[in-house]
Amino acid sequence: MSDVLTADAEADAQALQSPFLRALISLIRAQDRFGTWDKKDEGQLLAEYVIDKEKRKLIPIVGDPDPDQLSRLEWFYGAVGLQVESRTGVMASPIMQMSHEGFGRMVVTAGRLVVINKHLRDVHRFGFPSLAKLAAEGAKVVDDAVAWIEKHPDVAKA
Amino acid sequence: MSDVLTADAEADAQALQSPFLRALISLIRAQDRFGTWDKKDEGQLLAEYVIDKEKRKLIPIVGDPDPDQLSRLEWFYGAVGLQVESRTGVMASPIMQMSHEGFGRMVVTAGRLVVINKHLRDVHRFGFPSLAKLAAEGAKVVDDAVAWIEKHPDVAKA
Repeated sequence: MSDVLTADAEADAQALQSPFLRALISLIRAQDRFGTWDKKDEGQLLAEYVIDKEKRKLIPIVGDPDPDQLSRLEWFYGAVGLQVESRTGVMASPIMQMSHEGFGRMVVTAGRLVVINKHLRDVHRFGFPSLAKLAAEGAKVVDDAVAWIEKHPDVAKA
Repeated sequence: MSDVLTADAEADAQALQSPFLRALISLIRAQDRFGTWDKKDEGQLLAEYVIDKEKRKLIPIVGDPDPDQLSRLEWFYGAVGLQVESRTGVMASPIMQMSHEGFGRMVVTAGRLVVINKHLRDVHRFGFPSLAKLAAEGAKVVDDAVAWIEKHPDVAKA
């Protein structure tokens, strides 16, 4: 565990073992085609997802998201898709449409079912107070998506 | 009817009265905030959708779509959404994710239902041999979407 993350280090270390963060980490590692992040440990890989109170104060209220921020958002929902698939056996694909000003829409579909439908704004402020919170939020989104599939399995398999 | 369109002028004139092209025209007019296209008649407004054989031969096989081409694609599916809503009373919203190379995905959702799920490629070649074909293809896509809503009305209203 790197020292980039603090506060409740034990909770964070536990979060790193959660299925959602495992999926997120493997997805990020898979993007690293040139091994640029080989020397980063898992905490460092996810460090930019963590925006604590102090850090958040420094981010302007209004701002345009940069490509790294958009990637983090896409990876988050990509990991959601992976987790949904591993729990239900149904493939779930994210699709995002974003204005350059950082508002837009994220949809995750499974077959003919919309399992996540989220309107996004202030994407340049996307982040979580801690790794534990990131893991918890990811797990919650996955749970919601899985619940939709359980409710309409025929549509999810259509 | 302008002279930008030829071939079967009567079929084209009829097509301009179809519900799909009425929706498409009103959607394009609505984008024209500065009245730039005020003097264009309806045939001219849609002229760029028409790519006949001769015109198609001049388009390279591989190419990146320009913003006008992307707009035409978005208006096409926007008009589909309008028509779906007017026929079913359920709002349908398009969401598009496109690489700069012109492949990607277009999804139209109604409630929790995916009423259109289309993988796009060669967007720089998006067009139809005539206005009549444009109207026919639009109507077909609308029919497909409406059929999905009729099959799963509860999901479309969820």
